[in-house]
This record gives sequence, C-alpha cells and structure tokens, in this order.
Amino acid sequence: MTQTKEGFFWSPTHSYNGLETDAVRISSHTVAQSYDVVVIGSGFAGLIAARDISQKRDIKVLLVEGRDRIGGRTWTAKAMGQEFEMGGTWVHWGQPHVYSEIRRYGLHEALKITSGTGDLQRMMFKPKDQAVKDLDPQATDALLDQIAEKFFTVNGQTARQLMPFPHQPFRTPAQPWEQYDHMSVRDRLDQIEATEEAKQLLEAHTNSFGCGTAEDTSFTEALRWFTLGGYSFQGMYEAVGMFKLGNGGMTALASRILDDYQGDILFNSTVQEIHQDQERVSISFKNRPPIQAKHAVCTIPLNCLSDITFSPPLDPTRLQAISKGHTNTGAKIHFSLPTTEKGWFANTPDATQSDYLMSFSDSNPSVKGEAQGTNCIAFSYSGKLQDPGANEAIISSFKALRPDAEVQAYLTHPWATDEFAKGTWYCGGPGVTTRYLRALQKPHGRVAMASGDWADGWRGFVDGAVEQGMLAARWVVRSQSV
Amino acid sequence: MTQTKEGFFWSPTHSYNGLETDAVRISSHTVAQSYDVVVIGSGFAGLIAARDISQKRDIKVLLVEGRDRIGGRTWTAKAMGQEFEMGGTWVHWGQPHVYSEIRRYGLHEALKITSGTGDLQRMMFKPKDQAVKDLDPQATDALLDQIAEKFFTVNGQTARQLMPFPHQPFRTPAQPWEQYDHMSVRDRLDQIEATEEAKQLLEAHTNSFGCGTAEDTSFTEALRWFTLGGYSFQGMYEAVGMFKLGNGGMTALASRILDDYQGDILFNSTVQEIHQDQERVSISFKNRPPIQAKHAVCTIPLNCLSDITFSPPLDPTRLQAISKGHTNTGAKIHFSLPTTEKGWFANTPDATQSDYLMSFSDSNPSVKGEAQGTNCIAFSYSGKLQDPGANEAIISSFKALRPDAEVQAYLTHPWATDEFAKGTWYCGGPGVTTRYLRALQKPHGRVAMASGDWADGWRGFVDGAVEQGMLAARWVVRSQSV
Repeated sequence: MTQTKEGFFWSPTHSYNGLETDAVRISSHTVAQSYDVVVIGSGFAGLIAARDISQKRDIKVLLVEGRDRIGGRTWTAKAMGQEFEMGGTWVHWGQPHVYSEIRRYGLHEALKITSGTGDLQRMMFKPKDQAVKDLDPQATDALLDQIAEKFFTVNGQTARQLMPFPHQPFRTPAQPWEQYDHMSVRDRLDQIEATEEAKQLLEAHTNSFGCGTAEDTSFTEALRWFTLGGYSFQGMYEAVGMFKLGNGGMTALASRILDDYQGDILFNSTVQEIHQDQERVSISFKNRPPIQAKHAVCTIPLNCLSDITFSPPLDPTRLQAISKGHTNTGAKIHFSLPTTEKGWFANTPDATQSDYLMSFSDSNPSVKGEAQGTNCIAFSYSGKLQDPGANEAIISSFKALRPDAEVQAYLTHPWATDEFAKGTWYCGGPGVTTRYLRALQKPHGRVAMASGDWADGWRGFVDGAVEQGMLAARWVVRSQSV
Repeated sequence: MTQTKEGFFWSPTHSYNGLETDAVRISSHTVAQSYDVVVIGSGFAGLIAARDISQKRDIKVLLVEGRDRIGGRTWTAKAMGQEFEMGGTWVHWGQPHVYSEIRRYGLHEALKITSGTGDLQRMMFKPKDQAVKDLDPQATDALLDQIAEKFFTVNGQTARQLMPFPHQPFRTPAQPWEQYDHMSVRDRLDQIEATEEAKQLLEAHTNSFGCGTAEDTSFTEALRWFTLGGYSFQGMYEAVGMFKLGNGGMTALASRILDDYQGDILFNSTVQEIHQDQERVSISFKNRPPIQAKHAVCTIPLNCLSDITFSPPLDPTRLQAISKGHTNTGAKIHFSLPTTEKGWFANTPDATQSDYLMSFSDSNPSVKGEAQGTNCIAFSYSGKLQDPGANEAIISSFKALRPDAEVQAYLTHPWATDEFAKGTWYCGGPGVTTRYLRALQKPHGRVAMASGDWADGWRGFVDGAVEQGMLAARWVVRSQSV
C-alpha cells in the first residue's frame, strides 16, 4: 500500500494530508530524450490514448504526469479499511466508452449500488429560505417528471426532438438544441408555468450538473444530461449516480488500462511549455530536461491550460474558452456517520443559505459481516468549502442539510486548489457549447487535445475522457503513419 | 464494387443471386501453416478479436472465414443505387461495445433514423383472426406502457429489481430474474389481468425479439430487452430499431475494424475440425491443408457448431445447448414500394394467419434531391418464407399486413439455409439462459468461444458480438503470454 500526496482525512482525534491508494506509480528506470509520441497526463483520457497508441508496433510512447499517481480527477483512496472515490465515481452501461473498458477488464463484476440513489427510503429537501423537510419519494418523482416534460419541451419540440443525437452535438443540418444554447436553466424556468415548488425541485437537481445555480448552468447542458439518461430523471440518476466499482474502484480500472500500456512512464513531472515546429514537438518541464516527440497528446484540463505556454500559441477561440474556463469548483466530501442508515437523499436549490447542493447515503460499512455506520457523500456549491481543513464549516454546513447527522470523520480532495485540476468536472454555462466546443476538440498542430472537458457525449465524465483518449490515439496513429 | 455470392434481389423483370457489396475480401497472398493465433469467423466477434489480438507485438494472427466476405450475419448490400442491411442493422449509444467502435472510427456521423420507428405517422395492427386496422400511436404507446409495467412486475418486483445488472446475468447473490427463466412470455401473460387487446399488443412486440410466438420466447429474454432499453418500450425501440449507419452501413464499420487488423486473412475456407492437444490447436478445412496455432478463437454461431468436429469433444452441457440450438429463422425482407410514404409501423401476434410478424418503413430514397418511393423492412415468423425466390408468397403475405402496398422489388438473405448461419439472431426460449449460457461462454481448452449468441448483455446483437470478441482477445493475449 502506498500513499499519495493528495487527499485529506479528518476525524476529531487526527487529521492528515496524503491518503493511501493503489494509484501511485513511479517513473520508468530510464526515460529517453525523444519518443514517437508523448502523452501528457495520466487521467483516463491520457491512459486510454497511451494504451491505444502503444499497441501499434514500432511506436515508442512516453506517458508523463505531474502528480505522483494515475487517474487525474478520478482516484480511489483507502481509509478506515474502506475505499473512497475522491473524484469521478459513477459508471453505467449507458456510458458506452467507459463501460466497454470496464467490461474488457471484467470489472463489471465489482459494480455496486449507491444506496441514496439505488435504494431510496428517505427523501429530504430544503426549499429556498425554508427548513429541510421530508418529501414523499414517489410523489416527488412524479412531480419532477411532470415539470421535466414541460421544461425540456421548447416551442413544441420535445427533448428527443431537440437533441436526437446526444453523442454528436454538431450535425448537418444543425440539431434544434443549438438555438437554445444561449439560455440558462433560469431563463427556461422563467418561461414555463409551474408551481414554485416544482420549479425549485427541478432547479435543485439541475444545479447538481455543474455544482452551480440555475443562472450558471446552460439549459442545453441540463438537456444533454437528461437526454443521455434516456429522457427521464430516473434514467439519468441510474446512468450518472447509481453504479460504482467496488474492489479497487476507479483506480483498479485505471491500473488495468495502464497494465496494457507498452511504453515508458514519467511521474512527478510538471509540463511547462509545449513547443512545436513542422517536424516535432518539444515538451519542457519545470523540473527536468525537455523531451522531444513527433506527436503529443495533451490531456491537461481546461482550467489548467493557461498554465502551459504553447508555441506557436493556441488559436484565439480556444484561448477565449480557456480564459472563460468552467466554473465547477464544488467540493465532494465523504462523511462517515456512526448511525446505520438506509438509503436517503437530500438536496436544495438554496445556494444562499446552504453550502451544499446535495448529499446522499452511499453505503453501510460492514464490520464483521454486519452493517455498521453510514458513508455518505455531499457536494457543495461551487466556491464553497474549498478549504479541506475547515472542519467546523464543513460539518456545520452539512448539518444544515441533514440536521440529525453526527460526523465521525470525513475525506475530501480539494480539487479547486489542485494545481492539476483547478476545478472538478466540466459543466457548460449559457452559450459556451455552441461557441467553444468545436474549437476545443481540434488538434493543435502536431498535438492532439483530449479531455473529458470537451467530449462529445458524456462531457465532464470519465466516459467523455475515454472517448477523447480513444479519438486522440486514432488521430496520432494515423498522423504517425503519414 | 465487388459482388458476393450471397443475397437475393427480385423485381418483376429480373432477379438474381449475389449482390454487390464492399464486404468481399480476398485472402492474403501467402498463408503460413502455423500461427500464434487463428481466429475462425470474420463476423463482428471475429473481427474485433483478430484486431485486438494482432495489436500485441509479436503475436502472429490468421483470420479465417468460410464466406467470400466479412461481417457474418451483418453485411450491407448495394442495389438500385442504395444500401441495404441484409442482417444486423440498428445500433445505439445504449449498445456500449459497438457504439464505442462506431465512435472510434467516426462513423457516428453517418447515423440515420429509420422512419417507421423514429418518425411514426401511421400505426397498424392485425389482431388475431381479424383484419389489419389502424391504431392511434399515442394511445397505443400508453396502453403498451401500462401492460408492460404489469407484465414485467412479478410478485411485486419491478423489472429494475428483477434484473438490476442486465450486462451481468449471473451474480452472487443470484439476481431475481433467474427464478423466472423457466417461464415463456405466454406463461407470464396468463398470470396477469389485462384486456385481450393489451395482451395481444404486448405479444406482437415481444414476438419480434426472436421472431417466435409467446410460447417460443422466454419471459426473461423479453425482460432483458426491456431492461437494456431503459425499462420502457419506447427506450427499447430507440436502442434496437431506430438508428442505423448510412454511408457504407455496417460493412463500413466491419471494414474499419479489419483495416486496423495486422495479420493474414484466409477467405472461402470452411473449417471442418478443431483438434487440440496440450500444446497447440490444429484446424482442418474442407478445401485446404490444416493450419496450426497456439490458440484459437472460434466465433462459429450456435446453430453451426454441430457441423464442426471438436477433438477432444465439447463438454456435455455445451453439446446439449448446441443440439437445442436457437429457433430464430425469421426472414428479413427489404421491400421497395413505388409510393412515397411517411413513417409507418405494422405488426401482429397472429402467427397462424400472417407469415410476417412486423413490417415498417425505413426510408424514402432520394431521386435528384426529392423523396421518391419507400423502402420498408418486414420480418417473418421463424420457419416462414425461407425460400427467397418464392416471390408470390413473399409479396402476397406482405399484402396481408399492408393491404394497400405495391411491391416493385425486394432483397433478402436466406439466413436459415445459409450454411454459416443456420438462423438469424439469437433469442432464448424458456429455461435456456440459466441452463446453458455459462457453459457456452467458457473457453474449450486452448480455444476461446466467442459469439454474440452467448453474450452477457446485448445477446443476439452486434453489440454482443463485439463484447465477446473483446473478451476472447483478452483471454487469448493473456494465455499467449503464459
């Protein structure tokens, strides 16, 4: 068992930075000065790209990483004898790219169900300016379905008609969703007739798509989640929040992919500059000599791209997109509760009074074969609870959403201040998808740009990272053979 | 443009066997006597297995095929300036393995929508012993949803609870569906209270899962389709019958996969015997000298496995499964109609009075930019219309379901009498999944057995074939390195 520098554990008696994980890797014994391909970043996009490219005979590959571990914004920590997903977590067979990888390695056998979404017994909700109250799950689902149908049917076009190809945003002729991309969730809510209760309910759920408010989230991002989830909130929660990997978690998947990679690896090495001419790419580091390659794959997240000097520079549209960035800095915090609780789910659209947007039970740890205590997960609104050591705020805010809860420990990864992430998963604001997505996906000269942040389908998900890594690999292999 | 020996075209003025297609391949210039791995069959399971295995440096692979073309039970013919899918057709991002391949090669851009399922304007239905009548699509969908909920909720357990992991049939503890595997669709229909109209409606749809009657189809196979489709008939039809590849069709996908394969190919070569000892596999052919390999992948369909001599023999459970086979021999016939028709769908549970179980419009051919005429697709009940040249029966039966239709041409592939298929897609009868599936999936000594006929998830689909090919490749690569 090894320890990463990352992650934070708190309990009343002891707290520490740097959690145990199987994700830590050490660099290859020797790293050359020159490769056919350098893949920058060992998140899922980078792992898939590196693996796929290295399968080709005669292509020599180096995978470089600034961290001490694989997985990027997705990794599995170990604490208290249990596993915790510090970032990306939920997968499903409706996420085609990552599911196919999970199936390849037989890890689907380790899928398990999050109790707060998969076995819901208690539903709580905090309306704006009001206290938390219990809701009837069935009646609430029915209400949500009802308002969702209104919300996602615009000018007589249903979600199915607005976005018939959710894995291919841009088509000829253009799909109807494009004309509504300028709208925020708030704009759309203002257009429909529904009770305040129903609107707040929908808002609480769509806020979770990017840890933002109804003003922050674009209508079309909400539409995309709903559409990819099979045009229902139930299907959407199944697809994005119900099934997770046990038995090593997402780090086990990352490890299997890396096992199949046939090339060198270089960790703890921060890229500073990506220079290229007609023939090659030169990658400079903060802490080691530069490395040359014929091609590169850059999987650096959107919010970190401005830290890299590209020469020649990136195109103006991409630079605009980078300067705008994405605003999801919601904290994900695992709480350990002493009480053994059945599945529950709590959320709120009240970003003023509540630091958290939602929280739900995940599992009951097994102690000598018996369920004992509850692990639950809470997501904060962006910008809130960014200091992992601020235990008083973290716990008291949690009690605002779950008044009766006692916290015996928590774990979190401060993604917003993480120099290699500067945020959590991508979610677009109004106008952003039509304006920037195409530019972000283009290769920059001899450098493929691949990140789940600008995937076609499950953008912001591990699935999107796998999609992007797969495409980058194909582009690089074809470019190499020219 | 090349011509395969396969497929049949009929029109009043001329008919012929052997259609044009991009699927035809010729063997490698030289084929050795010995390989590391021989992959038998170039359907999707074989193509994926061959491609993936051949990516590994130092593994020498041969892909052998009895036909003159790639694709197995899936290939795209060309006639009248158009493309026709003669077998497997519809794909979706909810089919994770095949969608991931489609995305890899950028073919998702060519997805198009079948009008009879994706743009339905007219719905027709022939109740038992009655004439065809028009139905109101919305009211019918609502009725179908209603009876589906009753039908798929057994002893208080919903479809979600009966089969929570549709891509992993066998789990510990066993999933509830297993205890109902002995039931046919008929058995389950007899248990529920619903109008005869509603029952016949559901029956007509579930009959299409295996081109059989409610007695032929197991309740759990119907449950699997419904579950994989996201727990609704609408979602199911989207996942299995709405989106197809244009621009080269499924043969374009097969070709892209073969392009990435790095090994030899041998076509028009029928395997007769698969012999193995502790060290190697020897594959004998009808028409050429045997070939040796360290391992093999056998993708021969269930209904053809009894034509191969295995020594040592296959295990008794697998032999039982093979001797039982699967009973789907429904004919798939493309009709060209002179009338330019909007989306329509017609079906019937009346296997006594109707040779066809369903028919629907697919597209309107474009002539000088204008829609002109209609292509539609009809599926017969198993055992019916097996002679592609019996044009009178084929056309008059079609008119029984679509009385007003004129047929100006048709195309079909006689899968039931095809020596390398002996049936169409797999669908299990009562008791078969629990009894045989596990045995069918096991390797036989040094031979991986891979077919969509015994896939975990989308069994009977191209997706299942990709799943199986991927798993076989991984097994072989790991076995080779031992």
